[in-house]
Amino acid sequence: MTRRPPLRVLGIDPGLTRCGVGIVDVAPDRSATLVYVGVVRSDAGARIEERLAAIASGLRALIDEHRPTVVAVERVFAQHNRQTVMGTAQASGIALLVAGERGLPAATHTPTEVKAAVTGYGSADKLQVQAMVARILRLDELPKPADAADALAIALCHAWRGGAAAAPASGTLTPAQRAWADAERLARR
Amino acid sequence: MTRRPPLRVLGIDPGLTRCGVGIVDVAPDRSATLVYVGVVRSDAGARIEERLAAIASGLRALIDEHRPTVVAVERVFAQHNRQTVMGTAQASGIALLVAGERGLPAATHTPTEVKAAVTGYGSADKLQVQAMVARILRLDELPKPADAADALAIALCHAWRGGAAAAPASGTLTPAQRAWADAERLARR
Repeated sequence: MTRRPPLRVLGIDPGLTRCGVGIVDVAPDRSATLVYVGVVRSDAGARIEERLAAIASGLRALIDEHRPTVVAVERVFAQHNRQTVMGTAQASGIALLVAGERGLPAATHTPTEVKAAVTGYGSADKLQVQAMVARILRLDELPKPADAADALAIALCHAWRGGAAAAPASGTLTPAQRAWADAERLARR
Repeated sequence: MTRRPPLRVLGIDPGLTRCGVGIVDVAPDRSATLVYVGVVRSDAGARIEERLAAIASGLRALIDEHRPTVVAVERVFAQHNRQTVMGTAQASGIALLVAGERGLPAATHTPTEVKAAVTGYGSADKLQVQAMVARILRLDELPKPADAADALAIALCHAWRGGAAAAPASGTLTPAQRAWADAERLARR
């Protein structure tokens, strides 16, 4: 089996006031390690152009420090709360832009995809997602801040979905993939 | 009367495939002059993060060349066409970000505000807006490309609304303001 370096994924849960950010290393056997979790904030009292610039600046600093190989952003939907959706969409645009400017590939995933990838259940609640993220990353407690756990879930979702797409059909799993599938089943009990 | 330099406004009609851009100089007597009109494009076949980076790069180049004093962006609404609204919202976020990073104040105006400011009629059609923009800027023909005329209208809207907000109530118009109001009435006939 050829050795591949771990995939380092920056997951971003976009928001104008708080952008959840989580970075994980995911090995070829799909085991994952926490690298960073936090929040990039902007001042709710500042002008919109200054808030977006603050978010871009915070995300660039994170990328320059942790050098992810790919960026995954939660997809925003127009039909959600109209009062905040535009700010969220603008923040997601900033997240994608910063990836593009750093030459990093970016992808978006829907909340349902993220929940399904992490908990096996597309309608999982916030606490279930947090608990699974803690379990997957072997953390002693729930990741904090709580809303940044979503960013870790997005990063894990991206690594696993990308891996799954590249993997052979289930009948021809490698030993490592089979071990992972078993571990996932156990973790979901 | 004190002499003030003209206000140079960069108007942006945000879009992922085409961002209309228009720059006008607006004098204290509210007369306006065309500085630049055009479109910043992104390749519809490119990845979203590359497209947003291309838009940011095009807008930065424009700002650096023409040095506007303020940026005005058309406001995007969530209830519009859901298939394109997210791309439009992300492009508008990029436009606001670029302003913020250049230290320029930015503002957003609704399509209705823009139409009302330029034609006196919030439900004016595209051709009416183009015709009024050509008239206001003393152009021999309609501004081209046609969809960039909206960006000029946004710039004019911003300059005039800002001016109107700072102006005294209509009973106490300065001679220049009265002359402008007369000219506007004539132009609308």
